[in-house]
Amino acid sequence: MAEMNRRVLLKSRPQGEPTLANFDVVDAPIPEPKDGEYLSRTIWLSLDPYMRGRMSEAKGYAANVNLGDAMVGGTVGQVLKSRNPKFKEGDFVVEYSGWQSHAVSNGAMSMKLDPDAAPLSAALSVLGMPGQTAWWGLMQIGQPQARETVVVSAASGAVGSVVGQLARLHGCRAVGIAGGKEKCDYVVKELGFDACVDYRAEGANLFKALRAACPKGIDVYFENVGGAVQAAVVPQLNDFARVPLCGLISQYNEMQMNPGPDWRLLLVKRALVKGFIVSDHFAEMAGFWKEVPAAVKAGKIKYREDVVKGLDNAPEAFIGLLKGRNFGKLLVQVSDDPTRR
Amino acid sequence: MAEMNRRVLLKSRPQGEPTLANFDVVDAPIPEPKDGEYLSRTIWLSLDPYMRGRMSEAKGYAANVNLGDAMVGGTVGQVLKSRNPKFKEGDFVVEYSGWQSHAVSNGAMSMKLDPDAAPLSAALSVLGMPGQTAWWGLMQIGQPQARETVVVSAASGAVGSVVGQLARLHGCRAVGIAGGKEKCDYVVKELGFDACVDYRAEGANLFKALRAACPKGIDVYFENVGGAVQAAVVPQLNDFARVPLCGLISQYNEMQMNPGPDWRLLLVKRALVKGFIVSDHFAEMAGFWKEVPAAVKAGKIKYREDVVKGLDNAPEAFIGLLKGRNFGKLLVQVSDDPTRR
Repeated sequence: MAEMNRRVLLKSRPQGEPTLANFDVVDAPIPEPKDGEYLSRTIWLSLDPYMRGRMSEAKGYAANVNLGDAMVGGTVGQVLKSRNPKFKEGDFVVEYSGWQSHAVSNGAMSMKLDPDAAPLSAALSVLGMPGQTAWWGLMQIGQPQARETVVVSAASGAVGSVVGQLARLHGCRAVGIAGGKEKCDYVVKELGFDACVDYRAEGANLFKALRAACPKGIDVYFENVGGAVQAAVVPQLNDFARVPLCGLISQYNEMQMNPGPDWRLLLVKRALVKGFIVSDHFAEMAGFWKEVPAAVKAGKIKYREDVVKGLDNAPEAFIGLLKGRNFGKLLVQVSDDPTRR
Repeated sequence: MAEMNRRVLLKSRPQGEPTLANFDVVDAPIPEPKDGEYLSRTIWLSLDPYMRGRMSEAKGYAANVNLGDAMVGGTVGQVLKSRNPKFKEGDFVVEYSGWQSHAVSNGAMSMKLDPDAAPLSAALSVLGMPGQTAWWGLMQIGQPQARETVVVSAASGAVGSVVGQLARLHGCRAVGIAGGKEKCDYVVKELGFDACVDYRAEGANLFKALRAACPKGIDVYFENVGGAVQAAVVPQLNDFARVPLCGLISQYNEMQMNPGPDWRLLLVKRALVKGFIVSDHFAEMAGFWKEVPAAVKAGKIKYREDVVKGLDNAPEAFIGLLKGRNFGKLLVQVSDDPTRR
């Protein structure tokens, strides 16, 4: 039997939390590249919180996935066959093939990877979209100054871990918020944050625990989660605080609007809140490329991957991501990575 | 009997709406200026929403008024006696004498006024703190671009009226929100806004009425009021909208926190919200002085005063201000203005 293209389709739109029933795993013929296109096999698929928005009908900042289409997502692949002069057989590429084992692309959004410069999968985490999200939001909106306190939620995640380490490199006190002792220990002991608050253990005491970890208040809050964590942080913002608003993962499954903080808190502190999405700013990454790859190579920015094997397991892994079950950047290994032993 | 210093003191802190019982009107001896000081009589007292915050114990961005002290406020006065070489008898000054008929000052925060350049009272409205608030918030945070839609709440007020007229001068569609037909008519017919929505008449239809007035969505929302108006505006923000957060007058009397919009609305639109207070930015007013006085002189920026005669009537006028009863910049005429006939 010929090899097939394994695909995960959006079968139905979730009402609240996604379930396995919202996805369909199917086999389709492997497509043929036309003139100007190439065919690749997917090695790594990135699973990210923003994908929850693409499953909804609600209008977001990007087009939703249509029912019956493959789920979208960033990937690393290897070119199998090419009719595009810029890509040749065997090349490794970071691309946007989505939840499938094979894809054709015209290469417009693809970038070749040098497998000797960094592990292929890093193009989906610390050197890819999450790392660039962390850098742009922290540096351009947060504008951290030495000795300020930077708080980041989802601190052990792909974005949060980079935010806190960058804050430390810029002379700030870095305080993480994460769920569970294991993640908090990792954030402090491995990543070198000054402190990490366990929102699950603290529960209703989150406000006080955060105050203890931030005795001088909070100058920058890098917002990834929303909900109860947001409610505990905002009253502790200092005058002229900056809030890069990157994500609100705790609210993505909610069908109702979730009230935010009283704006009197923002007014009195003359605080700034700015929503952003990294794809608006890919042209503004010169500073990222200057700073982050070298810091990763020197071991000053560490990262952690949570690898799930096999595309069929992507739906379950994604559902877990929205509940904070992953520990590090969540990746699906779709096929063999010849650069890893 | 010798002339006395009439003073309005903070007698007790309001629970919710201020009442006349929160104020005490007393006579005290007229103070004598020491070396380096001058004595002035107050001509004009400005009443502004921020004063509600000064009456509370809750921590704000400035020190609260202590019980038994005179209420604070911007004033225009005339020097009666001076032991400061920079100010001589007869000079007109804009100062911060508060709710009293006489005051001594070291002049550090005072500025001499030229009575031929503009009416004295303009130093408390269009050329003073409200006008500077409008200009700084709109231009520095709002950054209006030609053909964008700028919405401002409390549109007939001292700040809002300048915001909308400036927006028009910069090529924008200016849409006001105000309470009552008379104010809305003034905003459109006198001030030249493109439209004005009457939040009192619209009630639960405010969202739809605003949508009709802003068919291309809202690019800049200059926030003066909060509450139901805020809830109607925020879901209509366009991508990359800017929200200068200047005031929240509808919430100032509330004892409880008043939930704000779901931050998902800000995230999806990549919107910016920035609280500010003009006194942080007095050093950044070069552009204001270049643009606004000339526009006022040329009749391109109009303003309206709502004058209450007599310091004893200040408490009642202030209580009315918080309910939107004033129409135009609320001023108390404390004593004769020799430049007006």
